[in-house]
Amino acid sequence: MPASIRKAIITAAGPGQTTLPLQRLVDRDGIEKSALEMIIEEVDAAGIEELAIVIRNGDQAAYASAAGKLVDRLHFVIQQEPRGYGDALLCAESFTAGETVLHLVGDHIYLSHTNRRCAEQLLDIAREHDCCVSAVQPTRETMLPYFGTIAGQRVAGFEDLFDVKLCVEKPTPTQAEQSLTTAGFRSGIYLCFFGMHVLKPSVFGALRSLAENHSRPIPLAEALNVVASRERLLAFQIEGQRHNIGVKYGLLQTQLALGLSGIDRDRILRDMVELMASQPSSLALV
Amino acid sequence: MPASIRKAIITAAGPGQTTLPLQRLVDRDGIEKSALEMIIEEVDAAGIEELAIVIRNGDQAAYASAAGKLVDRLHFVIQQEPRGYGDALLCAESFTAGETVLHLVGDHIYLSHTNRRCAEQLLDIAREHDCCVSAVQPTRETMLPYFGTIAGQRVAGFEDLFDVKLCVEKPTPTQAEQSLTTAGFRSGIYLCFFGMHVLKPSVFGALRSLAENHSRPIPLAEALNVVASRERLLAFQIEGQRHNIGVKYGLLQTQLALGLSGIDRDRILRDMVELMASQPSSLALV
Repeated sequence: MPASIRKAIITAAGPGQTTLPLQRLVDRDGIEKSALEMIIEEVDAAGIEELAIVIRNGDQAAYASAAGKLVDRLHFVIQQEPRGYGDALLCAESFTAGETVLHLVGDHIYLSHTNRRCAEQLLDIAREHDCCVSAVQPTRETMLPYFGTIAGQRVAGFEDLFDVKLCVEKPTPTQAEQSLTTAGFRSGIYLCFFGMHVLKPSVFGALRSLAENHSRPIPLAEALNVVASRERLLAFQIEGQRHNIGVKYGLLQTQLALGLSGIDRDRILRDMVELMASQPSSLALV
Repeated sequence: MPASIRKAIITAAGPGQTTLPLQRLVDRDGIEKSALEMIIEEVDAAGIEELAIVIRNGDQAAYASAAGKLVDRLHFVIQQEPRGYGDALLCAESFTAGETVLHLVGDHIYLSHTNRRCAEQLLDIAREHDCCVSAVQPTRETMLPYFGTIAGQRVAGFEDLFDVKLCVEKPTPTQAEQSLTTAGFRSGIYLCFFGMHVLKPSVFGALRSLAENHSRPIPLAEALNVVASRERLLAFQIEGQRHNIGVKYGLLQTQLALGLSGIDRDRILRDMVELMASQPSSLALV
């Protein structure tokens, strides 16, 4: 019986990303909250008991006030210098205390297409297969600059599960075309990170030895690539969609996706049509 | 020749509103910035030289980092206790040093329908008539809970200018119907504040004596009502639209209005249609 997964780490210390979890959105139930509160709810609904968030020093007060009613469950971990994503995870290594953890990025909102939350779907798969699992989403080539990308081989008997063969952080389209295709997907579509992983202690070990041997920031994808060469790493295609709020118009798209799949759908549609009618394109020239 | 108007005050200390100016939007030119930066640009483009922002203590660092490149022009004024809108303005009285000032609220984004910014239109009117002027917008009855509302009489020879007879903060629909109609507007439409005023020292005097005689928070509308009974107060219907980012879905509507009247209109329309197609209404039940 695999060990339970009861801890989660959210990373939110990246330069230029620190204010993203503080952005306000209205969720599918029509309730206003911060992006941070939505991410915490995602984790809580999946049964996670302990939650650490890696932030920049000085951001504690803003994050605490944006965290909502689960703020008392939140451990703040400070990344003293902006040394990248891998380093942010290493800052939280002592919090893991050798347990397998769920990891989420602080600049994504996750929308499930089923009645089970995205994190819940991922944890079920990780428990069943007892290995590291990266959630992935088929993603257009134009979005490669934003995501870690994998090449995988479909696991026999599973529509949505892949053995990861290679993992590259933000590949170029050429790199992707040459080495990151996965059979069964259309040309120009790649399996990119969903922003949610189940990480065993081996990932932290790989991050640490990469960090010791290089002075540059280590992306998580690089450590996962090391892990994939040594042990089983699965990629799981979530029934849902991630929305990166850090890209241009990311907040707009996220809010529209939330609104159009929630209880206020009719109101949002009406507002959209009214705005389309009242903002003539000639104004674009003003 | 009327005195020049070269100072502006932004109020952003209201409970529940303090994070609104920190929200991220993409402007009509496709540039990502904070709501605060947009408001500062509005003021700067109108030729304002000195700018004070009234905030809650502790918010300085977050506001300074959200203010953009004009941060050095910003004076921070601290409202020590949450004693309302009128008190927030009084906190900035010494900054005015007896000059006529432009005032904007920190939770509105202003979109001009001409090639002149909203603040610029307002300042021109105030200079021409040398009196207090409140910018107003015809507003539906359902939005009365959010705005100060005026009753006025159209100034002869001006389509967009009204002598203010009465000023009420957030009136009920019954109050509005009984005493806040302005000839020339359809039933259920009222002239509500646009979130932008030109205030002479007399307004600060009225605020101060109201505050001295009452223990409750004094809204600006109440002080303006006193001023209107003593001297000329104009209401000016701006060629443009204000978007209140503090109401539910306010950020979404503001971003859509910006996007649909800007250089990225085609992209926004395409994204909207794609999202409408990919978020079936059945998901509303998830």
